Amino acid sequence: MCRWLAYYGSPIRLEELIYKPSHSLIDQSLRSKLGVETTNGDGFGVGWYVGGEPTVFHSVDPAWNNRNLRNLATHIESQIFLAHIRASTGTPVQESNCHPFRYGRWMWMHNGSIAQFATLKRDLVLAVDPELYPFIEGSTDSELMFYLALTFGLGDDPPGAVARMAGFVEDIAAAHGVPDALQMTVATSDGERMWAFRYSTARHSRSLFFSTDVRALRDLYPDYPWLQHASDESRLVVSEPFGTLAGAWNTVPENSYGVIQEGVDRMGVFRPRT
Amino acid sequence: MCRWLAYYGSPIRLEELIYKPSHSLIDQSLRSKLGVETTNGDGFGVGWYVGGEPTVFHSVDPAWNNRNLRNLATHIESQIFLAHIRASTGTPVQESNCHPFRYGRWMWMHNGSIAQFATLKRDLVLAVDPELYPFIEGSTDSELMFYLALTFGLGDDPPGAVARMAGFVEDIAAAHGVPDALQMTVATSDGERMWAFRYSTARHSRSLFFSTDVRALRDLYPDYPWLQHASDESRLVVSEPFGTLAGAWNTVPENSYGVIQEGVDRMGVFRPRT
Amino acid sequence: MCRWLAYYGSPIRLEELIYKPSHSLIDQSLRSKLGVETTNGDGFGVGWYVGGEPTVFHSVDPAWNNRNLRNLATHIESQIFLAHIRASTGTPVQESNCHPFRYGRWMWMHNGSIAQFATLKRDLVLAVDPELYPFIEGSTDSELMFYLALTFGLGDDPPGAVARMAGFVEDIAAAHGVPDALQMTVATSDGERMWAFRYSTARHSRSLFFSTDVRALRDLYPDYPWLQHASDESRLVVSEPFGTLAGAWNTVPENSYGVIQEGVDRMGVFRPRT
Amino acid sequence: MCRWLAYYGSPIRLEELIYKPSHSLIDQSLRSKLGVETTNGDGFGVGWYVGGEPTVFHSVDPAWNNRNLRNLATHIESQIFLAHIRASTGTPVQESNCHPFRYGRWMWMHNGSIAQFATLKRDLVLAVDPELYPFIEGSTDSELMFYLALTFGLGDDPPGAVARMAGFVEDIAAAHGVPDALQMTVATSDGERMWAFRYSTARHSRSLFFSTDVRALRDLYPDYPWLQHASDESRLVVSEPFGTLAGAWNTVPENSYGVIQEGVDRMGVFRPRT
Repeated sequence: MCRWLAYYGSPIRLEELIYKPSHSLIDQSLRSKLGVETTNGDGFGVGWYVGGEPTVFHSVDPAWNNRNLRNLATHIESQIFLAHIRASTGTPVQESNCHPFRYGRWMWMHNGSIAQFATLKRDLVLAVDPELYPFIEGSTDSELMFYLALTFGLGDDPPGAVARMAGFVEDIAAAHGVPDALQMTVATSDGERMWAFRYSTARHSRSLFFSTDVRALRDLYPDYPWLQHASDESRLVVSEPFGTLAGAWNTVPENSYGVIQEGVDRMGVFRPRT
Repeated sequence: MCRWLAYYGSPIRLEELIYKPSHSLIDQSLRSKLGVETTNGDGFGVGWYVGGEPTVFHSVDPAWNNRNLRNLATHIESQIFLAHIRASTGTPVQESNCHPFRYGRWMWMHNGSIAQFATLKRDLVLAVDPELYPFIEGSTDSELMFYLALTFGLGDDPPGAVARMAGFVEDIAAAHGVPDALQMTVATSDGERMWAFRYSTARHSRSLFFSTDVRALRDLYPDYPWLQHASDESRLVVSEPFGTLAGAWNTVPENSYGVIQEGVDRMGVFRPRT
Repeated sequence: MCRWLAYYGSPIRLEELIYKPSHSLIDQSLRSKLGVETTNGDGFGVGWYVGGEPTVFHSVDPAWNNRNLRNLATHIESQIFLAHIRASTGTPVQESNCHPFRYGRWMWMHNGSIAQFATLKRDLVLAVDPELYPFIEGSTDSELMFYLALTFGLGDDPPGAVARMAGFVEDIAAAHGVPDALQMTVATSDGERMWAFRYSTARHSRSLFFSTDVRALRDLYPDYPWLQHASDESRLVVSEPFGTLAGAWNTVPENSYGVIQEGVDRMGVFRPRT
Repeated sequence: MCRWLAYYGSPIRLEELIYKPSHSLIDQSLRSKLGVETTNGDGFGVGWYVGGEPTVFHSVDPAWNNRNLRNLATHIESQIFLAHIRASTGTPVQESNCHPFRYGRWMWMHNGSIAQFATLKRDLVLAVDPELYPFIEGSTDSELMFYLALTFGLGDDPPGAVARMAGFVEDIAAAHGVPDALQMTVATSDGERMWAFRYSTARHSRSLFFSTDVRALRDLYPDYPWLQHASDESRLVVSEPFGTLAGAWNTVPENSYGVIQEGVDRMGVFRPRT
């Protein structure tokens, strides 16, 4: 399993998100409180957009002592960040297995797993659009879920495509007699909006939180510097809260998804489709 | 493309094979003379057998300055070695793409490529035995050729299985209108025997050489220490000769294969089967 | 800080020591119970002897998912093993900072630190024998302690040399007004004997344990396979116990050292010398 | 030995400098024409300034297939770039040995070597300002030359400090009877200006070139896109020319240095001082 954070809002330096908070993502790489594993040290990745183009930085090192990440985080500024620290569930520790994955203008990252992935993988791979298939580079369930979602229309209707992906995974699992097929929190973005999903077949999903509206937080914490110059619409979605600011974090409801965008964000029920 | 060496014979320390010769495999990693690329610096691997069990050491570093390889080579002794230095043809530099690959008691390494692999990959993957499919860990054509050969009976009839693999690759390529489908020199072993193949669809295969019979070499080079205690049946197959010993190396004929084993080695014509 | 184990005894496969026990060194890399840090993921190293020559395998990866270590551990057998997992106290994660360090036939590994090492380093480096100085490759306090011990006669009188090293470090620290200069558990070997040290200026040393005499353990645990074929003199010294075998582990007393050798082991008081 | 490029001028994306030219730095990593080695695959580094602060990205991988470099180069834009590909002369391949080195607002990179460095290193290290000494992280002659130059006043008078560094190295070498002490091309910057040096004790220095004035080049090559929007003062200094543009490159004279700055650049004779 893994930990991730997704940011959408006013331009911010990466270090504000992943180093400075008291229980930052870097701290979570060593001392996750809510994750399945305490340690998330099997590589990491960050993704951001420059001129609408996604770019990523991946490494097989643990994040906590990676100096390139420390250097880049001081200087890279973006309105969208996807950051991910990995705890492998068996697939190799290699850059092609680091999140966020990228295709076209889309990025994708995942915490969770497909149950008995080795058993189901072949049938899942066969369903990937043959045009997309050659772009799969790694060996994780997470990347395959991304390519299934792309196959099922991520570019046009993200919630629908992810619902079809989830439904398809559950169908294949059912055909193989594999229970509790899917466990996922997912963030994906096209550089303009961001979608976050929390779902599990067993209705017992990994933790996911979204940040309280910046306007409300600003009143609560007048001395917190970043909040004062953050745009009203800045928003974080995280596997686990960064620190101890009471009222700053809200649970993403079980089996739901959210759209983070300019204007009003939106949240809906997530229901796999078949 | 890549360079490799396969050794079968009396127990030898790895360093005798990959460091000490004048144009050793390590030298070839920097200064290949016959390869498509001069530099073979995209990872390496060595495989050997301990008590009939194959083991491998893989690294994404160039071989030339890898200190672990230097240390291990001084101490590891085996009757069979497969050693490989990689020059990526596009797939990521990661340990799961390093040769030799391993399945059960089998090891496999390859120099060459499948033409337009991205186009053909999906159809090739579909032909892998579903029981074997989950064991594919990397993303190379080379590993896929191994799993196709395993699917087609490598365990029972190595030359036949490799011929069926080659024929199948050529069939799939033909169906996609891809010419000159296959380019390969391959070594594979089950720990008891070793097979080497040289083949290309275009009948213009990468270089491959086998060493002259030790008895003959010993007469030619009475002062060459290793030869004096090598068993009569010790044999090397290499992508390019190690040095300048006249008479030590013989070209493996175009479209042929050899079996290296206790007793008399055997060579045959290699003809893809469909 | 770090965790380590030192083994001396009948030939054993490395995996028996670092993978198979319930709270093995690999488990300690993720979940140390007695260490300063829970996670020891900043590289690792193992050292052993082949024909009296020390060899090492180092990696900057965390040990828990390293496949080369997994492969090598299955096959490497030795009568002496030094194995170390690192949690950096600030110096870079690089192979030249991985223990065990090696010079001539000597190996050395360390858990602990020199207080305010950046302040003291230069004066300590100046004391290293100029003939030895060029062999220092990394940047840790641990390696420098090794070269100081070599300078002060490790080859002739290990306990005396380590005592002089500790005394010298404390003297330099005192001159700089640095309190609580040294914190160390150290194992060192010349391939014939092994020495272990537990010491700290503050008399509050990191944990260290030695295994109960094999003859006694065999009576206690008649079903434990490895014990049945271990020689009477096999001995382990470890940063923290491997598992829950009652009576298997004994605390190395504060400020003491032990010699592990053929025949009777010896333990003594450790007192820095100036 | 190594290859490097230093850029000073209008903001440019890194990829324009290190990927797009026909004989780019990336191409030189595989196929250097003028270097001591053809292959420069022992790690790389790039440095640039953000808001006057230097930042670096270092890797032990060869540059040619490094995907993070490829990604970052597409997006990172700066007015100053220092880029370096390494061919180790014996010191370990590790990030702390990758150029450019950084201290305060200064960056430094080097091609060349100090003769018999192992013999001279200790005496050279002793001359480093004790306040600066703890910041040395790697083990190369190159980094030590940087810290000697800092000790000798790099911050106030770069040409003078480098001259004193070179003179000191030559003095120490003479005291040890080491001939031809120093071989260097160096680039250093404080974020406002850039200095380049070409020198060797033997007056037979590694190659170094500077680019022709942009105004002249623009007339020569009206179709070359980058030139059309490059500022008049944009300047490159490189170990070897990028391509075949006749008239684009000029040899930096033996034993000389240049200052690249806003307004008129300046060149002078380089003479070590003692």
